Amino acid sequence: MSLLAVGTVAFDDIETPFGRAERVIGGAATYITLAASYFTDNLKIVSVVGDDFPKEELSYLESRGVNLEGLQVKAGEKSFFWAGRYHDNLNDRDTLDTQLNVLADFHPVLPDSYKSPAYLMLGNLTPAVQKAVIEQLEERPKFIALDTMNFWMDTAMESLLDVLKHIDGLIINDEEARQLSGEHSLVKAADVIHDMGPKYVVIKKGEHGALLFEGGRVFFAPALPLAEVYDPTGAGDTFAGGFMGYIARTDDLSFENMKRAVIYGSAMASFCVEKFSVERLKELSNKEINKRIAQFVELVNFDADIEL
Amino acid sequence: MSLLAVGTVAFDDIETPFGRAERVIGGAATYITLAASYFTDNLKIVSVVGDDFPKEELSYLESRGVNLEGLQVKAGEKSFFWAGRYHDNLNDRDTLDTQLNVLADFHPVLPDSYKSPAYLMLGNLTPAVQKAVIEQLEERPKFIALDTMNFWMDTAMESLLDVLKHIDGLIINDEEARQLSGEHSLVKAADVIHDMGPKYVVIKKGEHGALLFEGGRVFFAPALPLAEVYDPTGAGDTFAGGFMGYIARTDDLSFENMKRAVIYGSAMASFCVEKFSVERLKELSNKEINKRIAQFVELVNFDADIEL
Repeated sequence: MSLLAVGTVAFDDIETPFGRAERVIGGAATYITLAASYFTDNLKIVSVVGDDFPKEELSYLESRGVNLEGLQVKAGEKSFFWAGRYHDNLNDRDTLDTQLNVLADFHPVLPDSYKSPAYLMLGNLTPAVQKAVIEQLEERPKFIALDTMNFWMDTAMESLLDVLKHIDGLIINDEEARQLSGEHSLVKAADVIHDMGPKYVVIKKGEHGALLFEGGRVFFAPALPLAEVYDPTGAGDTFAGGFMGYIARTDDLSFENMKRAVIYGSAMASFCVEKFSVERLKELSNKEINKRIAQFVELVNFDADIEL
Repeated sequence: MSLLAVGTVAFDDIETPFGRAERVIGGAATYITLAASYFTDNLKIVSVVGDDFPKEELSYLESRGVNLEGLQVKAGEKSFFWAGRYHDNLNDRDTLDTQLNVLADFHPVLPDSYKSPAYLMLGNLTPAVQKAVIEQLEERPKFIALDTMNFWMDTAMESLLDVLKHIDGLIINDEEARQLSGEHSLVKAADVIHDMGPKYVVIKKGEHGALLFEGGRVFFAPALPLAEVYDPTGAGDTFAGGFMGYIARTDDLSFENMKRAVIYGSAMASFCVEKFSVERLKELSNKEINKRIAQFVELVNFDADIEL
């Protein structure tokens, strides 16, 4: 089934304890579509870049099945740019620079062929932009997922709460869930967020895995314990891309299938952090992904055998 | 099979965001034996208390199948006392007071009937005391597990490294594993610790679950997501007690069974934190434990169904 991804396509400068990468390819929509491209080739993207964005990178996305009709290229303007430095623990990072550039005045425009996607992933962007995409749809997708961040809770809470009423699944990290809900316990946070609109709440905990909450049920997917994490940039978006790509492929919204989607999202994220930028996501094989899924099964599978 | 537990039996003052408990029952060996008592009634304890320790609490341990012949009661002396305050996140705590009292000069003495335990759990204590217990054994137990803490790495690293050579499984938390190994990655930390002696390394991550490492294999058990955590005191010892109690009951050292032991340890720890002190551990039923194990199965169980 078709999956429409909305989000940034951008340049990143990244510093981790393992090295430095300058002006590499980043952006939520880039990670989302690349991860999803291993599950479906019916992909559409709504985003904006300046004419400084490399044409070969756009061609590469097209070669992975991503339709770029909804990607605006602004002549004479610059692409969104983010620079960050990770701490030694790789869980914390400082933003060193943010240049909105083309994003400062971004008005998403959905081509006619984009107006009835089966599935919609709204990557982290101004809530008003996310809402503007929903408003241009002619048919309600089967599942709308949304990512957001603390910044929008600080600066645009009202419009964030508004867009949350129109989506099915919120995919955020633990700190964001705590800030949004005002609850420290993630179980309570998920309850509060359910009441804001989303039936499904996925809370990403980075190296500590991810939780899926729906109607009193909870599922936990671990992160794969890795010896080396080179660059966490884009891991959350890659998770979302794997999650929604798997759902678009299987077209099954049962809780059992959502659980699998969380595992596939976690597996894709575990590849993402192994190299800088999108490098690892570009070189994956289906065989590697299947093998990693088998590692997840191995990691958590056990037989409870005794009755006390 | 028989399980010998070595560790403190003590009083705690505990402050959490949910309340305050004064002079409640605590101590590693208390939590370990109480948790293990749901799996086996062949339990022995090596510890020391002053004559201020309530006789009815000792009788209660006996009623749960714990042999107290190895518990020294020092006339005219006071029991070990610890006071701590938890931060709002319940992951961090400050020690407000530590009074060694009877522990200051503790020389463990194993009664003859204690010298051939099938399984041995060395709770957190001076490494030299842990070693002194091993030296008094007449037969090598099938499995020796040990817990320790950062304090001993700071003050008695040499004797800690010595005792590690004589054990099979180390059960510590993530920060302790990092300090002991000098590695941030827990995968690498486990490798370094394997080389110090322990074939099995269990790393507890509190609310983020626990990892079991052995010979290149890894298993992950989540912590149960809880709406309320009242008091984390003793959760790690309860985990160890459930883990070793399960192993003593099943007498099976295969990796598959170790995985189950980690799940049972996690389940027992999830009860421990629901009330102050050992309250919750005193009132459990087998039915509740079985039900909680079923919740763990539900929490992580998934079927991987597609091949890409």
